[in-house]
Amino acid sequence: MSNEDLLALARRIFAAQPFSTYLGAELLAAGAGSAEIALPLRPELTQQHGFAHGGVVSYLADNALTFAGGLALGGDALTSEYKLNYLRPAQGASLLARAEALSVGKRQAVCRCVVLARDDRGVETLCAAAQGTVIRTAP
Amino acid sequence: MSNEDLLALARRIFAAQPFSTYLGAELLAAGAGSAEIALPLRPELTQQHGFAHGGVVSYLADNALTFAGGLALGGDALTSEYKLNYLRPAQGASLLARAEALSVGKRQAVCRCVVLARDDRGVETLCAAAQGTVIRTAP
Amino acid sequence: MSNEDLLALARRIFAAQPFSTYLGAELLAAGAGSAEIALPLRPELTQQHGFAHGGVVSYLADNALTFAGGLALGGDALTSEYKLNYLRPAQGASLLARAEALSVGKRQAVCRCVVLARDDRGVETLCAAAQGTVIRTAP
Amino acid sequence: MSNEDLLALARRIFAAQPFSTYLGAELLAAGAGSAEIALPLRPELTQQHGFAHGGVVSYLADNALTFAGGLALGGDALTSEYKLNYLRPAQGASLLARAEALSVGKRQAVCRCVVLARDDRGVETLCAAAQGTVIRTAP
Repeated sequence: MSNEDLLALARRIFAAQPFSTYLGAELLAAGAGSAEIALPLRPELTQQHGFAHGGVVSYLADNALTFAGGLALGGDALTSEYKLNYLRPAQGASLLARAEALSVGKRQAVCRCVVLARDDRGVETLCAAAQGTVIRTAP
Repeated sequence: MSNEDLLALARRIFAAQPFSTYLGAELLAAGAGSAEIALPLRPELTQQHGFAHGGVVSYLADNALTFAGGLALGGDALTSEYKLNYLRPAQGASLLARAEALSVGKRQAVCRCVVLARDDRGVETLCAAAQGTVIRTAP
Repeated sequence: MSNEDLLALARRIFAAQPFSTYLGAELLAAGAGSAEIALPLRPELTQQHGFAHGGVVSYLADNALTFAGGLALGGDALTSEYKLNYLRPAQGASLLARAEALSVGKRQAVCRCVVLARDDRGVETLCAAAQGTVIRTAP
Repeated sequence: MSNEDLLALARRIFAAQPFSTYLGAELLAAGAGSAEIALPLRPELTQQHGFAHGGVVSYLADNALTFAGGLALGGDALTSEYKLNYLRPAQGASLLARAEALSVGKRQAVCRCVVLARDDRGVETLCAAAQGTVIRTAP
């Protein structure tokens, strides 16, 4: 598949995720083994201290891993497991998750992801780092 | 603190999490080193195949770990890292996360969590398992 | 397979691991989805503070996970990923890893493990906790 | 500390690890937030299929993470938790672990590591990837 086709495929799958729409996330970019998802922050997405909730950061990491791995594997996929380290409070105008495949086999890909916070001026701060396994679902 | 006071404290913190309210989650139980969170499933919380999105399962695991660890440590806390294995598609009437502290120090607690799906008849199925570190935030 | 056959199979595989012999580890018990490995401590296995090296604790967790998962899956297997939290310094007469399968599918099992230190009087202290995925290797 | 002093400090600590000596590992390089450890392979370090045992790969990842994080934090440190994905069978003339700090705070550093296998001609193959937390031990 061309990179354009991969992005179109990824966008179709992303648009079919009601939870991504509910949060207001957007698939910014996708290639063969990479994906970037953005999420504008708003009060509904925060925890008790006003930062983005860990579940929001986790959603971004999990989903970016899935797309990076699925695109590396060439089709629909799911994250079978991952690990995430929170590095700094996630706050600002938006969050950005960037994932890429580190190793790709026939049925699974191991991927890494960083989650960054972007403020009003476009300055990015590293907030979280994840690593996980993505498995192809379709034959 | 008595178990009643712990539950009241946990409920105050939980109610102060806009994201938990946005998802519709409920803190069912809490003790010194344990927490149980429920989340009725609805279409907004799903992914492209109709199952609960991995980000929803992750939210539950992350938050249940935080509360179990925070209550073990005796105050406000945050999850500093965790790892999650998805075991089965998360579907049914609601999801349930049960976490408990495995080891508690002065500043951090290591906790484990399972996420279960409950169907209309109350039958529970194991969907995910997590393990992570919770750190006390306040002195 | 009967539990006796499983233990015999596990013992054959364990005895075929030169690294387990080199460290002096022993497979104490094994069942369908469980395994217990012991390792007497000696100076060669320590780090700079006299505790068992993290690599020794990791070996025990990794190997106990593999055996628990492999026996649950019914044959030769390997750990594809795991996560480990160190909980307390590992010291004493010996270390003991106990693993069990939490969820078993056709091709993979998710397992958990604890590593305990046992002193001269037989008192056990929890030193580490792990969770990981085991994959069947043979058809 | 100068990079030379950091390497000297790291070498002193490494030389004080009996387990590293027992395995035959060597600290190749170290800087402020980075470390590289090599381990020549030999039959004693293998599992039942002739590859390096997962415990050997884990030792390398754990120890490289500890040194990278400790040097980032400026002193003696320990890995408090990590996660490792095995990517390919570890075989060849030697294994090589390269770790670096991703995020450094006052008390802890989050680090990443890759483990590579090197064959007789110097060709390197990625075998494992790890991510973990290193905590400063001394005040």
